[in-house]
Amino acid sequence: MKIPEILLIESEHRPGSLAKVLTVIGECGFVVEHLSALRRDQDKTVWELTLELDTDRESDVIQRIDQLPNARVLGRSDRAFNRHRGGKIQMVSKVNLESRQVLRDIYTPGVARVCLEIRDHPEKAREFTNLNNTVAIVTNGTAILGLGDIGPVAGLPVMEGKSAIFAALADITGIPILMNERDPVKLVAHIAAIAPSFGAIQLEDIAGPECFAVEQGLRDILDIPVLHDDQHGTAVVTLGALISISNLLGFDLKDTVVGQIGLGAAGLGIARLLRRFGIKQVLGADLAEGAMQHLETLGGTRSTLPEIMAKADIVMSTTGVKGLIKKEMVRAGQVILALSNPEPEINPLEARAAGAAFAADGQSINNILGFPGLFRGALDAGAKRFTDEMLFAAAQTLADLSPPDELMPDPLDRALHRAVADKVAEAALPSGACD
Amino acid sequence: MKIPEILLIESEHRPGSLAKVLTVIGECGFVVEHLSALRRDQDKTVWELTLELDTDRESDVIQRIDQLPNARVLGRSDRAFNRHRGGKIQMVSKVNLESRQVLRDIYTPGVARVCLEIRDHPEKAREFTNLNNTVAIVTNGTAILGLGDIGPVAGLPVMEGKSAIFAALADITGIPILMNERDPVKLVAHIAAIAPSFGAIQLEDIAGPECFAVEQGLRDILDIPVLHDDQHGTAVVTLGALISISNLLGFDLKDTVVGQIGLGAAGLGIARLLRRFGIKQVLGADLAEGAMQHLETLGGTRSTLPEIMAKADIVMSTTGVKGLIKKEMVRAGQVILALSNPEPEINPLEARAAGAAFAADGQSINNILGFPGLFRGALDAGAKRFTDEMLFAAAQTLADLSPPDELMPDPLDRALHRAVADKVAEAALPSGACD
Repeated sequence: MKIPEILLIESEHRPGSLAKVLTVIGECGFVVEHLSALRRDQDKTVWELTLELDTDRESDVIQRIDQLPNARVLGRSDRAFNRHRGGKIQMVSKVNLESRQVLRDIYTPGVARVCLEIRDHPEKAREFTNLNNTVAIVTNGTAILGLGDIGPVAGLPVMEGKSAIFAALADITGIPILMNERDPVKLVAHIAAIAPSFGAIQLEDIAGPECFAVEQGLRDILDIPVLHDDQHGTAVVTLGALISISNLLGFDLKDTVVGQIGLGAAGLGIARLLRRFGIKQVLGADLAEGAMQHLETLGGTRSTLPEIMAKADIVMSTTGVKGLIKKEMVRAGQVILALSNPEPEINPLEARAAGAAFAADGQSINNILGFPGLFRGALDAGAKRFTDEMLFAAAQTLADLSPPDELMPDPLDRALHRAVADKVAEAALPSGACD
Repeated sequence: MKIPEILLIESEHRPGSLAKVLTVIGECGFVVEHLSALRRDQDKTVWELTLELDTDRESDVIQRIDQLPNARVLGRSDRAFNRHRGGKIQMVSKVNLESRQVLRDIYTPGVARVCLEIRDHPEKAREFTNLNNTVAIVTNGTAILGLGDIGPVAGLPVMEGKSAIFAALADITGIPILMNERDPVKLVAHIAAIAPSFGAIQLEDIAGPECFAVEQGLRDILDIPVLHDDQHGTAVVTLGALISISNLLGFDLKDTVVGQIGLGAAGLGIARLLRRFGIKQVLGADLAEGAMQHLETLGGTRSTLPEIMAKADIVMSTTGVKGLIKKEMVRAGQVILALSNPEPEINPLEARAAGAAFAADGQSINNILGFPGLFRGALDAGAKRFTDEMLFAAAQTLADLSPPDELMPDPLDRALHRAVADKVAEAALPSGACD
């Protein structure tokens, strides 16, 4: 199979350099599909060059270019691009439109009777439409991954990724909703206006502090579940990991001192959930005074990085600052979860070498473990909101189903997400989520 | 309004049993729409029998069948309801989430490179996301089919039907967007706020006159194609039918006098498109003065029902008033398209008996023939708007591809929609749709 391979090639800025590169490519039997200059330094040019490589056939084209005196291969595109080509999701018809009779049943005139049934009994929309499997994945693109404010359309690949995960793991139709809007009041108004389209709403990668106002504003006026995944999805998986670690190491989680370094959406979400779960002391540190005040309203205690490292039994960090935690700061027996992606505040191996009883990074604590089951459970229960008890149920299930020698279960296991969903749904009614 | 009712009827397996059932149905004034044997026991057969019952009129047809010695009604079939159960659409992942490596490619960390690529080259969203296959199907539920203002959620089965048709016939991801909003200014603001999520927007079943302001407002500010299907989709299929008829009967369409009875969204859309197509005289009649003024701004001529019947070579009606056109009004040689669904202004057989050269009802002129190819073509061309030339191209293609003895092609033929899309895309660039 031929797949497009995009090479980045640097050539010296002198006559004939590029020609030699293309000659080598030609000699190797490849056609140049696309070629463009990405940037030019004083004496070098970087080219983006697209070939179609054959996956079935080895080639030394890259080595041969590297051997040229005036050029070298800087890198090659990873498969990721190819896996995104054409998009990662697609709406399909569950009905086979094989005949006019089927068409007459699912469209006019047959659909009219179903419409009237829902007009007279609105709850039947759950039964005769896909509404109860549909979750909006809403972003305004202001905090996409660790990339920051790159705009909603540049964030679409992430939203499609979430939708693909929803589909594959929880049979949920996730609809990316991209909004060019920063004002939280307007965001609430626009999202509320389209809310009848969805069974639940997932807010995603919206920057703080606006994200807090948007979530609260929607929860105040909508009677469908709303969850800002960066805050609560991450918090659920982190709590699950802490329960799992406390089982592993044999301590009582509620009696520990927890320190949260970095109080963005994720950090505050973690601090909030841990306090609600019953952990008596949650220290928090952030450079922003507003975040520190927010922490205090959630029952956390204002602290500093050195104090947290000195006092906390469990240290978590969500700062985005690589290497923030030095090995000298680590106390023997500490649990350290350095959660920033893709580069943690301290390498887990280094933390363990410095005496940590347990250390992990963000790759082990993946929010894919949380959101599919959380939303499936909420939809199955007909919940009108997420309650803390539903979040606890999800976290506990993740810990319960972790293999004996692993921190967390396999995120690609559909049965895991089914189990999380069942426990979340079970927790919904008694905790008032359906009132 | 008439809606289909599917009865399950058991008849004794002996000569004349079924005939007696059908006789009773005929005596009650109902036409048998569809009949099939579901199963046969030793001495009995169970039939699935589709009638169109009138929601405005009580009937004792079920009791009368039950009184027959050799048959009884077992119940109502759930066939149409069953085809809607669980919803008619579903989002799926195009990527097989078979391994952690795939997950790392399509989600973090691999997705980050794709996001940055789109940030730096926004046009690459067409290549690496599903954006260019995604069409919003937006309604506020104020004019669902002929059912009227039943609310957006009760209209969802229709929107899911459109989405299923988009998926099956044009590989388009149609996203139902349901809005609880009547004010056209607010509708425009809310739809514009989520517009980055879509490659194009289809407005659907929004009542007039608000629908005109909503469409125009969106066209003024968005650089993606926006089409109110009730106006322009119906107009395209109608124009296609008129071209087809003019070929069949051998007259020059542009020289005819056309009369449009009923100037709602569909009627005005038809009048507009026919004038733009070059038909010199389009007479129009409606009880609402606002609609008549609107007609004049579109180049139509204010008229009356009697005048249209007296003068027009081609008469179209979209009034929703059953039997409005009496057979005495029909002139010899007239073409009559009585388009109201499900009950036309005059039965085509009756019109032909009264001397019409050609007559059809709304079932022959199905908007499914139009919108899939119109949107596929606009998306393929990267069009920023629909131009009249794109609408003409679609209409012409429908006429060109109609079988010799048929008014219109088969709406379930994917190749037809591909052909329409290609012609629409071809017409986009030269007509300025991509500027």
